[in-house]
Amino acid sequence: MRVILVAGTTRTAEIDGISAAGATRDLLLHTPSADAEILAYGDTVRAPVTPVSPTGCPTPAVVTRAVRELLGFDATVVDGGLARPTGAPSVSVGARPGDDIREPDPVPTAPGAFVAAREFGRALPDDRVVVGETIPGGTTTAMATLRALGEDVLEATSSSLPENPLDLKERVVGSAFESSEVDPGRAAHAPETALRSVGDPVLAVASGLAAGALESGTDVILGGGTQMLAVAALVRHAGVPDRATLATTSYLAADVPELAEAAAGLELDLAVSDPGFDADEAGPLSAYAEGVAKEGAAMGGALRLADEAGRLDEVVEATRAVLGRVTVDGTGGAIRDDPEEEVGGGPGEETNGETGGTADDGP
Amino acid sequence: MRVILVAGTTRTAEIDGISAAGATRDLLLHTPSADAEILAYGDTVRAPVTPVSPTGCPTPAVVTRAVRELLGFDATVVDGGLARPTGAPSVSVGARPGDDIREPDPVPTAPGAFVAAREFGRALPDDRVVVGETIPGGTTTAMATLRALGEDVLEATSSSLPENPLDLKERVVGSAFESSEVDPGRAAHAPETALRSVGDPVLAVASGLAAGALESGTDVILGGGTQMLAVAALVRHAGVPDRATLATTSYLAADVPELAEAAAGLELDLAVSDPGFDADEAGPLSAYAEGVAKEGAAMGGALRLADEAGRLDEVVEATRAVLGRVTVDGTGGAIRDDPEEEVGGGPGEETNGETGGTADDGP
Repeated sequence: MRVILVAGTTRTAEIDGISAAGATRDLLLHTPSADAEILAYGDTVRAPVTPVSPTGCPTPAVVTRAVRELLGFDATVVDGGLARPTGAPSVSVGARPGDDIREPDPVPTAPGAFVAAREFGRALPDDRVVVGETIPGGTTTAMATLRALGEDVLEATSSSLPENPLDLKERVVGSAFESSEVDPGRAAHAPETALRSVGDPVLAVASGLAAGALESGTDVILGGGTQMLAVAALVRHAGVPDRATLATTSYLAADVPELAEAAAGLELDLAVSDPGFDADEAGPLSAYAEGVAKEGAAMGGALRLADEAGRLDEVVEATRAVLGRVTVDGTGGAIRDDPEEEVGGGPGEETNGETGGTADDGP
Repeated sequence: MRVILVAGTTRTAEIDGISAAGATRDLLLHTPSADAEILAYGDTVRAPVTPVSPTGCPTPAVVTRAVRELLGFDATVVDGGLARPTGAPSVSVGARPGDDIREPDPVPTAPGAFVAAREFGRALPDDRVVVGETIPGGTTTAMATLRALGEDVLEATSSSLPENPLDLKERVVGSAFESSEVDPGRAAHAPETALRSVGDPVLAVASGLAAGALESGTDVILGGGTQMLAVAALVRHAGVPDRATLATTSYLAADVPELAEAAAGLELDLAVSDPGFDADEAGPLSAYAEGVAKEGAAMGGALRLADEAGRLDEVVEATRAVLGRVTVDGTGGAIRDDPEEEVGGGPGEETNGETGGTADDGP
């Protein structure tokens, strides 16, 4: 069993109001790198931020990490276009940060990354994998991607924000199609075209991985919400029919009434887990129960594994233990002194740092 | 407990006779990437080769992997200048493939990578780490590096070859100093200068990691042979006095009579483990007992962990189990069809592929 976290960025997240309100640009840029480190080490090691929403809701990566500590599964980070270096070990399949989807060719690395990720997914030795994502702004690009495929399985994708900025998302998606050569529905059976034209690099890598894993007989759990529905749609449009599971949180499921129908339409078994973050002892995790964050960083997939192991009721305590260890300086998306200059110091430094980034906007 | 494998290349390995005789250039180029995958997954997943010497001796990475399967430690690959993409998750600290040390400035990324690796080593959350290496040609660059520091702790470094090509190594090291601005002994207390002028990127990353880990109070086991002595010397010349352990195999120790004295001179405790590869049931592993390979890919460190756990006598069987699973097509450094074009396919592919590489020349 391996949990694969695809971590990357799209400049779509920099549009005012798209991602967690009030998030600084630094937080947007560093969040996926920080999430990867939290999954790998239980704390940030190079990323200068610990992702916490402005209201104090911690990143879902701490939940995934907590379940990892309970169950001991392998975890692998795949670079889905990171804009800042991460201290987490990561696999590269050629993805680069995505541009704002209102630009004409926002994800030129998507087709190559999709192919390379698919090859990598086929080669994985595991019987079963969970695939999750961390990319601020990703629900907007997922909405555009579903529309490009002609998969109107959802009225709209979910949001990490308590108030989903649907009008804004619609405007952004509309502009994306205006500047692109693809019209809604015209990228059916052409997932690489949808990804390149109106998608993001994390969708490209996650769908390639899932397609390749399924093709080689690996069981696949898509751990997440509406972005993972877009991943499933891309897999289907790549000609891979094998059943998979969509594993998500009760918070996400409550936010998306048509989820079950959408999952069934994509040949997905649906597994919804409730980690009990409404309990008195949940502390800052209670924000999830209040509709903040809801999903992300493979949280729903990890909860599903905890549920199968009969240990779902230990997740609150385990997550609070992780939270007690992570570095948080202040609240509201703590920014430490940025050590990037020094850490990225080598003359040949292999940053992927051409572009902007994002704070996790969730499902 | 975390085992950190620093994997990279130096074109020094391409000099005829320096690294495993008869190794093809493809094998030299891909071996560190393949070793990283074997540690991470128990088999190659992207690398088109399985590193096996011309006489059929398997890479020490299978031994490290076997111990990992016995004990379940975390493993992290750090990119020390890989020349080919690896499917193993890896951390980048800015190292690029090293050039032939007879060139004027063979490792320009060494100072930056040393600093970044040190920072990363400081941030690791572990109480204890094992640091190992995989870099064909690395014993020659280690010999030059020790000499640049003025550390004549060894007459010569060991070799993975049954007949250590000492005259050739001496000539290469001599040429390296001729083309460099550094004279032997003149890089004392300037490890970055030694590394950049006559070293290799794996030494830069491994010594930075070890220095940073020691500085933050982490116990450090250097898992390997004479290259790890060079790492220890670099750590001392960086002003880090904390004691560490050198953990190596009985095969390496038998090849280097002055090892104990050299280790003591660098404030290292020495731990020598015998995995019993001379046993009847050792099969192809018996090549180790006959003086091939001897060490590499953190093998000595992994054996030390097995020894502490009282499970050293299970290593032969566990290693043969791994060998039974790895992909080997033919003998003598099997080369599969090279899927690199496709796998590295993305337009923005993040290969480190500027330069040549190498087959593990061991200790």
